[in-house]
Amino acid sequence: MKKEIIVYSISDSLGGTSQKLLSAVTAQYPDIIFNNSYRFPFINQEEELLDILYDALKDNALVISTLVNSQLASVAREFSQKNGLAYLDLMHPFFEIIEEKTGTRPIEVPGTLHRLDSDYFKKISAIEFAVKYDDGKAPQGFLEADLVLLGVSRTSKTPLSIYLANKGYKVANLPLIPEVPLPQVLDKVDSHRLIGLICEPEKLMKVRSHRLDSLGLTQETSYTDLEKIYQELDYSKKVFKQFGAQVINMTDKSIEETAFLIEEQVKKMN
Amino acid sequence: MKKEIIVYSISDSLGGTSQKLLSAVTAQYPDIIFNNSYRFPFINQEEELLDILYDALKDNALVISTLVNSQLASVAREFSQKNGLAYLDLMHPFFEIIEEKTGTRPIEVPGTLHRLDSDYFKKISAIEFAVKYDDGKAPQGFLEADLVLLGVSRTSKTPLSIYLANKGYKVANLPLIPEVPLPQVLDKVDSHRLIGLICEPEKLMKVRSHRLDSLGLTQETSYTDLEKIYQELDYSKKVFKQFGAQVINMTDKSIEETAFLIEEQVKKMN
Repeated sequence: MKKEIIVYSISDSLGGTSQKLLSAVTAQYPDIIFNNSYRFPFINQEEELLDILYDALKDNALVISTLVNSQLASVAREFSQKNGLAYLDLMHPFFEIIEEKTGTRPIEVPGTLHRLDSDYFKKISAIEFAVKYDDGKAPQGFLEADLVLLGVSRTSKTPLSIYLANKGYKVANLPLIPEVPLPQVLDKVDSHRLIGLICEPEKLMKVRSHRLDSLGLTQETSYTDLEKIYQELDYSKKVFKQFGAQVINMTDKSIEETAFLIEEQVKKMN
Repeated sequence: MKKEIIVYSISDSLGGTSQKLLSAVTAQYPDIIFNNSYRFPFINQEEELLDILYDALKDNALVISTLVNSQLASVAREFSQKNGLAYLDLMHPFFEIIEEKTGTRPIEVPGTLHRLDSDYFKKISAIEFAVKYDDGKAPQGFLEADLVLLGVSRTSKTPLSIYLANKGYKVANLPLIPEVPLPQVLDKVDSHRLIGLICEPEKLMKVRSHRLDSLGLTQETSYTDLEKIYQELDYSKKVFKQFGAQVINMTDKSIEETAFLIEEQVKKMN
């Protein structure tokens, strides 16, 4: 039987911050089940906080706090020390170091992220751009794009575009299909903005099969034929060479890692 | 003059985890400039780690580590204690608590997130779904969707769809335009799956003006006319009532907060 840890996440805002860290932590324990369904956002009263902590104690839970309010955070810390509750405060260790370095105290206003500022507008409009110019739908968008991703089917063009858009880049993408002529506008795009995605044929076959499965289709098509995939990839490499695209091999890379490499390329060209 | 803190981020993977936490922390200090351009991903050698720590010391930096490797992490911790370097390890406090609770040690494999598992496929396909069924492009997709977002222009339908897709939901969206007839398929969608987005007219006017600015257009259009916006919103509320959509007011809410409320709705209906 697998061991289980119940995790309580307490926040005076949404609590999204602790979730990202928690995924990184839990990934280090393939043999432990983390029950992460106890999430308590928007906590701002001492009584509700104490109720949650008593429950956590009963559940023998691990408590993670991203409370920014110092009063609430110290109530939680004292409760945990007194009762032997496993408690991690993600914010205040930072606050203490920053106060030591600068003498400045945090404003303690929950969830001050993602307000209507220019970064926010830039991100939203980049996401809309990525959606509008996905899948070669409107190749004239290539001229406005920071990046144009090229690749055969299932080389993760769409999720990569969205991920990069989330970081503020305007990204368009074009599927490469040997039977379909390339849009003429491609000639006019600065080659530094072109990213060619490749992938090991065997992995591509696996990903495509999974795709067909999920669509409820049978596997006997040229889409998952290894020889056909080799031909498609050869064709795509010729296109990359012709247009001077930077090539990235995304076999065994996550979207995040591939995006990281693309960002490094972008930085080099600036 | 504003105070500045230089932040060094050290990771044996991409280092994305610390960045999320860091944004939450820095949001608490509007009067401090955080220089966050010193990012060191894929660190796996003691010598390169020590080089970075010596530089951090010279820069009087705050060092954040998401190193999972215990050997490297203890080198960094000892160096920092000895030299008075401000150092925060985000991972090992978790590891210690979990070992105490379960006796289990972390596998210490960097970046074990986002591999080819079924969650990963689900997320990718949800993003593709959102892109495909954005902006009412193919209303037949509504029948397959977990959620259909409805709202007038600039109520954040697209970024919300993408954000929810990122969490694995299949989301379609439809812009409501008084002059354009509604697609008939809307009658067949379970009303619990329909989410109506509204927003204060004044905010909508501001957001739309910003949109026109960013497109380099002048402001004298009915798109930003307050009276016209009132009419549009009234029309949208009638549509929500007619189809029994759950209504969410996204004025003063970030995408994340609105998505959170939508998820709560989804949980209630399951």
